[in-house]
Amino acid sequence: MNEDMNIFNTLESEVRSYVRSFPTIFTKAKGYKMWDKAGKEYLDFFAGAGALNYGHNHPKMKEKLIEYITSDGITHSLDMASTAKAEFLNKFNDVILKPRELDYKIMFPGPTGTNTVESALKLARKVTGRTDIISFTNGFHGMTIGSLSVTGNSMKRKGAGIPLQNVVTFPYDNYVDDQNSLDYLERFLEDSGSGVAIPAAMILETVQGEGGINAASPEWLKKIESICKRWGILLIVDDVQAGVGRTGTFFSFETAGIKPDIVCLSKSLSGYGLPFAVTLIRPDIDKFAPGEHNGTFRGNNHAFVTATAALDFWKDDTFEKEIKVKSEMIYSFLQKLVDTYPELKGEVRGRGFMVGIASEVDGLSNKIAAKAFENGLIMETSGPKDEVFKLFPPLTIDEQGLKQGFEVIENSIRSIVKEPVTI
Amino acid sequence: MNEDMNIFNTLESEVRSYVRSFPTIFTKAKGYKMWDKAGKEYLDFFAGAGALNYGHNHPKMKEKLIEYITSDGITHSLDMASTAKAEFLNKFNDVILKPRELDYKIMFPGPTGTNTVESALKLARKVTGRTDIISFTNGFHGMTIGSLSVTGNSMKRKGAGIPLQNVVTFPYDNYVDDQNSLDYLERFLEDSGSGVAIPAAMILETVQGEGGINAASPEWLKKIESICKRWGILLIVDDVQAGVGRTGTFFSFETAGIKPDIVCLSKSLSGYGLPFAVTLIRPDIDKFAPGEHNGTFRGNNHAFVTATAALDFWKDDTFEKEIKVKSEMIYSFLQKLVDTYPELKGEVRGRGFMVGIASEVDGLSNKIAAKAFENGLIMETSGPKDEVFKLFPPLTIDEQGLKQGFEVIENSIRSIVKEPVTI
Amino acid sequence: MNEDMNIFNTLESEVRSYVRSFPTIFTKAKGYKMWDKAGKEYLDFFAGAGALNYGHNHPKMKEKLIEYITSDGITHSLDMASTAKAEFLNKFNDVILKPRELDYKIMFPGPTGTNTVESALKLARKVTGRTDIISFTNGFHGMTIGSLSVTGNSMKRKGAGIPLQNVVTFPYDNYVDDQNSLDYLERFLEDSGSGVAIPAAMILETVQGEGGINAASPEWLKKIESICKRWGILLIVDDVQAGVGRTGTFFSFETAGIKPDIVCLSKSLSGYGLPFAVTLIRPDIDKFAPGEHNGTFRGNNHAFVTATAALDFWKDDTFEKEIKVKSEMIYSFLQKLVDTYPELKGEVRGRGFMVGIASEVDGLSNKIAAKAFENGLIMETSGPKDEVFKLFPPLTIDEQGLKQGFEVIENSIRSIVKEPVTI
Amino acid sequence: MNEDMNIFNTLESEVRSYVRSFPTIFTKAKGYKMWDKAGKEYLDFFAGAGALNYGHNHPKMKEKLIEYITSDGITHSLDMASTAKAEFLNKFNDVILKPRELDYKIMFPGPTGTNTVESALKLARKVTGRTDIISFTNGFHGMTIGSLSVTGNSMKRKGAGIPLQNVVTFPYDNYVDDQNSLDYLERFLEDSGSGVAIPAAMILETVQGEGGINAASPEWLKKIESICKRWGILLIVDDVQAGVGRTGTFFSFETAGIKPDIVCLSKSLSGYGLPFAVTLIRPDIDKFAPGEHNGTFRGNNHAFVTATAALDFWKDDTFEKEIKVKSEMIYSFLQKLVDTYPELKGEVRGRGFMVGIASEVDGLSNKIAAKAFENGLIMETSGPKDEVFKLFPPLTIDEQGLKQGFEVIENSIRSIVKEPVTI
Repeated sequence: MNEDMNIFNTLESEVRSYVRSFPTIFTKAKGYKMWDKAGKEYLDFFAGAGALNYGHNHPKMKEKLIEYITSDGITHSLDMASTAKAEFLNKFNDVILKPRELDYKIMFPGPTGTNTVESALKLARKVTGRTDIISFTNGFHGMTIGSLSVTGNSMKRKGAGIPLQNVVTFPYDNYVDDQNSLDYLERFLEDSGSGVAIPAAMILETVQGEGGINAASPEWLKKIESICKRWGILLIVDDVQAGVGRTGTFFSFETAGIKPDIVCLSKSLSGYGLPFAVTLIRPDIDKFAPGEHNGTFRGNNHAFVTATAALDFWKDDTFEKEIKVKSEMIYSFLQKLVDTYPELKGEVRGRGFMVGIASEVDGLSNKIAAKAFENGLIMETSGPKDEVFKLFPPLTIDEQGLKQGFEVIENSIRSIVKEPVTI
Repeated sequence: MNEDMNIFNTLESEVRSYVRSFPTIFTKAKGYKMWDKAGKEYLDFFAGAGALNYGHNHPKMKEKLIEYITSDGITHSLDMASTAKAEFLNKFNDVILKPRELDYKIMFPGPTGTNTVESALKLARKVTGRTDIISFTNGFHGMTIGSLSVTGNSMKRKGAGIPLQNVVTFPYDNYVDDQNSLDYLERFLEDSGSGVAIPAAMILETVQGEGGINAASPEWLKKIESICKRWGILLIVDDVQAGVGRTGTFFSFETAGIKPDIVCLSKSLSGYGLPFAVTLIRPDIDKFAPGEHNGTFRGNNHAFVTATAALDFWKDDTFEKEIKVKSEMIYSFLQKLVDTYPELKGEVRGRGFMVGIASEVDGLSNKIAAKAFENGLIMETSGPKDEVFKLFPPLTIDEQGLKQGFEVIENSIRSIVKEPVTI
Repeated sequence: MNEDMNIFNTLESEVRSYVRSFPTIFTKAKGYKMWDKAGKEYLDFFAGAGALNYGHNHPKMKEKLIEYITSDGITHSLDMASTAKAEFLNKFNDVILKPRELDYKIMFPGPTGTNTVESALKLARKVTGRTDIISFTNGFHGMTIGSLSVTGNSMKRKGAGIPLQNVVTFPYDNYVDDQNSLDYLERFLEDSGSGVAIPAAMILETVQGEGGINAASPEWLKKIESICKRWGILLIVDDVQAGVGRTGTFFSFETAGIKPDIVCLSKSLSGYGLPFAVTLIRPDIDKFAPGEHNGTFRGNNHAFVTATAALDFWKDDTFEKEIKVKSEMIYSFLQKLVDTYPELKGEVRGRGFMVGIASEVDGLSNKIAAKAFENGLIMETSGPKDEVFKLFPPLTIDEQGLKQGFEVIENSIRSIVKEPVTI
Repeated sequence: MNEDMNIFNTLESEVRSYVRSFPTIFTKAKGYKMWDKAGKEYLDFFAGAGALNYGHNHPKMKEKLIEYITSDGITHSLDMASTAKAEFLNKFNDVILKPRELDYKIMFPGPTGTNTVESALKLARKVTGRTDIISFTNGFHGMTIGSLSVTGNSMKRKGAGIPLQNVVTFPYDNYVDDQNSLDYLERFLEDSGSGVAIPAAMILETVQGEGGINAASPEWLKKIESICKRWGILLIVDDVQAGVGRTGTFFSFETAGIKPDIVCLSKSLSGYGLPFAVTLIRPDIDKFAPGEHNGTFRGNNHAFVTATAALDFWKDDTFEKEIKVKSEMIYSFLQKLVDTYPELKGEVRGRGFMVGIASEVDGLSNKIAAKAFENGLIMETSGPKDEVFKLFPPLTIDEQGLKQGFEVIENSIRSIVKEPVTI
């Protein structure tokens, strides 16, 4: 580790984490590439954990942003009205909601994923008058107490320092082999002696990013929606990571044909990696009093500007089709890896650009990701035991970029599985 | 209300609030001025609720930001190392911490005030192994469940939809006339039969912004610090609103001569109104495991760039001195108002640039703020009954701006108190 | 309803319940018979909900009790030492614990079932330092907040008026057809992303009395014990209703061959229907500080006296054998009912003297119990929908009593199923 | 310690406590006297911690009880109607409620103090729809989770093993010198920013027994009642220890002239030391559904019989007058002790037969009580530091008994304060 890295070791809190996996100082970035201080180039198959679906510093957004800043467009406006916000609202409605026949009120809950999740949970409890939320195994929804209570990861839960309450966890799709987890869920709800009350809401990701790239089937999602309807339970889809095209459609739940009552969006929503989040709310449950939830950075106009520009990607179906083609390439590549390297004891998981390989070999995925970093590619692991290495390139990556990345990954795997694996 | 405002009424959630007090669409802003779509100019005596202490779009920060964006400096880096972050860390240490003999590890907890508060509470509970937090009447710390549980406002607490737990509220300085609230606090802690366990931490603002511009005396703060030391309770100062110069010094607690164990900073920290927050942690309690608290937007490099530029204001004591001179002007003006307009039944509150008048007349402060808006000045109310109108101009405002503002405010008051007040 | 009953309607709280099912005033009782004020005789197939396993006013215990009272034996002694308590301790150890190779410390937690459950939960949390308890669907453990939080019944849970916390409910044996509920339990415990932390304890009844006479299989119980051992989870068996011979052995868990870490006993323990309870604790976890749990009526010496006398039933295996013979008669009778009256859509449930028929026909079990009462037999219903009518005669009932009861029950059913059932 | 005591050390849980202060085995008791196995006589100035206000084994109650048992009166009846219960209800209404113009419905919540408190808290939350309870410093209400959460003692609270929630503790009368604690309470309730919501109920003892014999003034109690009325808060008086004559009147709150919404009674209610409790409920809030709170030992008919007999003490004012005379003797004696023995640094506390001396000298009260035991008198200490020795003789004690006891106590003090006190 070079001298410069000492700054971080000395001044920054021990809580820092990605810097430990990717120990270098980044300076510039463009599209699917990043460069460190020494000038070394990296392929970005991580994309800000899903916050950079359009790649780094997209030229069109950059242009709009510089233009806005140059002209002294208002930067910070809390939840006052601004031109930039009006443009975002209009365009989001026209390009995203209307064509999908979705009717939502738009809430700006603060600019991060955990803000939108917290606002969703609060609203669901308020409108139903119930306190419990049903979450699912290996769900990840954020680090503030409300969001953390619906997050599965035990290490992160312990970080709360208090018992996390008002939540009941049920098994996600395919959690136990050959057993239908929804039978349990329904039985618990039907049985007035089950100890589980009808909850305010269920919250779920259609593909679990941090939880190990588990993709729920459309049938499971449809069944969940119908259970929610039957019992008057609100369905919250946390589309913070899986949304904004990551699975192939703007919302991850489009393919399942469901319409959640509340949708949480953040990460790639600004398009440029700027902090931004919205909570989409079925109009008849839009019942917060004015100011009942607030926050200083709800009016991040730079994000409004880039988010509005980013919506151009969704004006027609060109982008979706491109994602589809490329995601099939990725999927094939992963399938080939599993077949070629039985040492991985691997299983391909996920859909769209939200995929990875779960390896049964303890520690192997971390080794592969570390080797890939050495070889110039940024890639994350996820899952309760970090058992999955994730391929999360920007959706805008070109074929050449993908192939280059595939080569680095395969080389990294090859060099690892040849070494004796010691755990 | 013009037609354009309909966009917000139609598409945005009912939770929106400032837009109801300031019903116009803003487009541009510079220093202490804002302009709406129709070109009308406003004096900004609100400063983004304390997020714009250096005014809107400060030219030096703007220059650095455009330069950074133009050069494709990395925008979003999670908690990886970046050049922009290294520069911020170094300069923050050199310009702010070292000269004040403060030794803190710096945590990036996510870019908002509630993120830093949540991280502080979690850490305090983790390192002490205790669950309770002592908060104070009319404290305001954020809207996510952890922060909301230590916030006093009952309307906002009810928004949680669940009982808020693991917190005990004690009276803030001067809460009840002629009674020393710290006698109670100490008695409760000393008495093993009091029902109040030794808490993990106390959290407080040295001046309560949202709670009604209540300023704690240095003596009270010192006593709190000594109680904390006696019992091994961590002292968390939430300097999100009062920090970054708002009270006259960089940290609001400097004048009291105390050294909190944890400090929460956000709002004006980026200097430019961009989402940004840090949690400052006494090194020996910097005990989160890597990744035990995380978040997508911890690496907002645009904010690192502007925050670093903003630190130039603190290289010597010039800025502090200027704030002092101007804050005395504001204080005198407010005192004069109270004297001149007995109809206000007013009391001047606060210190530095964090001041206002509490009026005993129900609804009067809101009327004054509304009239000021008509007259071209943005000003907020606060307190449990909105009984305080707050003067929160940027610290960088010049004398002319102040005087102009004073004139608008006094005119607004004059026109209001002449009208018969109907409640 | 006669005039006398008005006393209860006028003076007693609306919460009264059994008096509504059995609307008469009882005066005397002996063995398996009760008499009301008018002199009408009833067969008691209810046995104080399991508190009168030896029947009413057993002559030997009565004799000992009168002798004790007559001689001014100390009645109330808190947790001071008394002769009566010493005799109970010695005999309980000699007759019950030693022959079963059970090594437990005996705690007197207060004289009711909910007291022993609360003490067990507190102790489990204290010794493990963990907060969660795993309970099971349709478990019933008491009405005070700690016990109620591990109770499944939703009506009773709502009576708390607060969210009940620190508990996770898993499916009891055979909860969903063709699915192995323990696979879920183990998966949740193994998976660090499941959102379910390793709990302090599991609490269960081996046969669920209030929950609908669900009997867990020995295999299921053994598996639960082994899961608890694997994870260092304490196993609490709540034997308040199923214990003291009700299932055929003194402890209900004997047939499964398991050794719980904590056992809760009450109801029939005093033998005479007097309030009494003990908590049995594995010696190495007997870690309460002196007085850390206390209560005024821990030293109910009248109960010590009758409980000691009652232990004579267990000096050899005669009583067990008698129970076995009679319980087979009961079981056969129930099986015959199900076969003979298909209109019941009935299923026989339970084991030993803790059995009943679950009818799929809504409301039918209540009708049968009501008719039986008219015909002079007291019998309760249970289950989340009161779908089960329970046969709970004293264990000391003779063959004649059983046959008499069977006749009343069958007559009641016959007269009901002939009527058109209206729901 | 003799050999017999080994039984308790070997077989009983470590949680046992009084047996450690009074290490002998009791066999018989009558009135205010107890005898141990060795035949040693003790004066009982403890009275079962307030459960034996009529002394041990009162002859009239004994006679009625033996008669009832002999005639096979029903012993255990859950909440079915019984003759014994009807008689209790009628007589309690006639002798206690009507003459005091109190209109309450009577609930049998289970036979212990903690049962009645739990039922009161649940009911208050249910009928108000609110979750918080205000309790007071050094309150003691029981050991089950609901009651424990409103109990002040930190050692006992920690025994819960979970954070105790939904309670806010305010200072009891005279908690801090020269400060009016009710000013704080009212300010917190009035201020919508205080963080303290309007609670479901306040629960208090008019004299705190376990908390150190703190007696609230009638003015304080009246003010509490008026605050409760103003805000629609239910007032629960926990009269478990202070009730049934202990302070000189049947209910401890009679002298203050208040009418609580809910009253909790237990301890001496049965008169004979048998487990028994009632919850008295203002008729319009008697809103539990049938069976929403239940329990096995609600129908302890032996207790109904003795409780009914005990009510004869209250048929006219003779008993009250006798208590008054004797309690003045006790008070004078204590005052004389404080004056005569300045080494005690003592303060007389309490009222009626619920009095003691708080000594500022650490450990002194325990020494005095231990010495008194040696000298043949049973007396308890209380308060957060056991700083108070309590005089709690039966109300039926005669002058001779009192004087005998005074002599033992004074002798014990004299012998202690002459010894050098080592702490």
